[in-house]
Amino acid sequence: MAAITDIPDIVIGRLPIYLRALNQLADSGQEITSSHELGQHLGISSAQIRKDLSHFGEFGKQGTGYKIHHLREQLKQILQVDHEWSVAIIGMGDLGRAVAHYGGFVDRGFRIVAAFDSDPAKIGMDVNGIKVMNSNHLPEEIRAHNIKIAMIAVPAQYAQGVCDTIVSAGVRAILNYAPITLVVPPKVNVQYIDPVTHLQRMTYYLTD
Amino acid sequence: MAAITDIPDIVIGRLPIYLRALNQLADSGQEITSSHELGQHLGISSAQIRKDLSHFGEFGKQGTGYKIHHLREQLKQILQVDHEWSVAIIGMGDLGRAVAHYGGFVDRGFRIVAAFDSDPAKIGMDVNGIKVMNSNHLPEEIRAHNIKIAMIAVPAQYAQGVCDTIVSAGVRAILNYAPITLVVPPKVNVQYIDPVTHLQRMTYYLTD
Repeated sequence: MAAITDIPDIVIGRLPIYLRALNQLADSGQEITSSHELGQHLGISSAQIRKDLSHFGEFGKQGTGYKIHHLREQLKQILQVDHEWSVAIIGMGDLGRAVAHYGGFVDRGFRIVAAFDSDPAKIGMDVNGIKVMNSNHLPEEIRAHNIKIAMIAVPAQYAQGVCDTIVSAGVRAILNYAPITLVVPPKVNVQYIDPVTHLQRMTYYLTD
Repeated sequence: MAAITDIPDIVIGRLPIYLRALNQLADSGQEITSSHELGQHLGISSAQIRKDLSHFGEFGKQGTGYKIHHLREQLKQILQVDHEWSVAIIGMGDLGRAVAHYGGFVDRGFRIVAAFDSDPAKIGMDVNGIKVMNSNHLPEEIRAHNIKIAMIAVPAQYAQGVCDTIVSAGVRAILNYAPITLVVPPKVNVQYIDPVTHLQRMTYYLTD
């Protein structure tokens, strides 16, 4: 399914959250849910959920709720994770290794196929079944595996350089763990994993 | 500064992003910026930035831009990170250790003061200057240090149990690294670090 481009990115950003909640409900053996139940689970209003989903068609009948399996498959298609994407990870320090071992990728559309580091002590290491390659070979390896998605887990001062290299080699989606904002061409998407921005969003609400 | 409760959470969620961008501009020696420049940097419209900031007062004059230092201090006050919060981390596997070593917390309002694990092999270990404590002691340690913020980095099947324990002990803000949705009382905020939801938000836009 091709992306419908006039849908706000903020709506797209909520679809993976809905998908994760549906996965959890399905894992618990449930077959039907409602926007009300999903909303309570996620702290999002049921009206918001219905409105978000209505961008993509009709997924449930008034009063009968959503068939979890069906809605889940539809969301996977919309997000293009009904097939598996090859992902590279650059930086095999604590964080890169933790990400390589992360159990949450399985069955959710992603497989780490290549890992890179510039440290001779790490090159050649096996991390969760992936052999760490020399960062010098990034461009040819990215091209050889036709990798469009990469995760950057290098120290902040190297992140922009790595970003430029992989974008030149064809990467179009970057998940950046380094605590800096990356500069990329318009055709490239960047998402950030920065625990501090999440923490700061919560301290706003803390009292005493 | 007490939270102004009628401001949409989505606006609050963008303030830490603005703050991070301002820090980067300040680090590069810049003193003045504009909603236009910030917007270009972040891929957010300048109108959106002006509208978001207008919830909290007047931060710049038409045509003269924002004083970076001033806006930064204001945002820190609004987000209540003009002082340092004590944070606990539960789970000292690859991920927990990586988070404990993360360089991005410094000067951004947070200090990890306590780390916990249930594995006897990890209890007593020193991770980045923090001694790993036995998870059995979570409630009394959380209370003793008056900790309101915690990060959960335990395997998925233990995350809800840990969550219940720390909420009972007074934690009000949780950053959850486990790939499940946590159930918490209304007074508790949860944010999620789930790389897959970020990746799925980007695959929507991928073509080839």
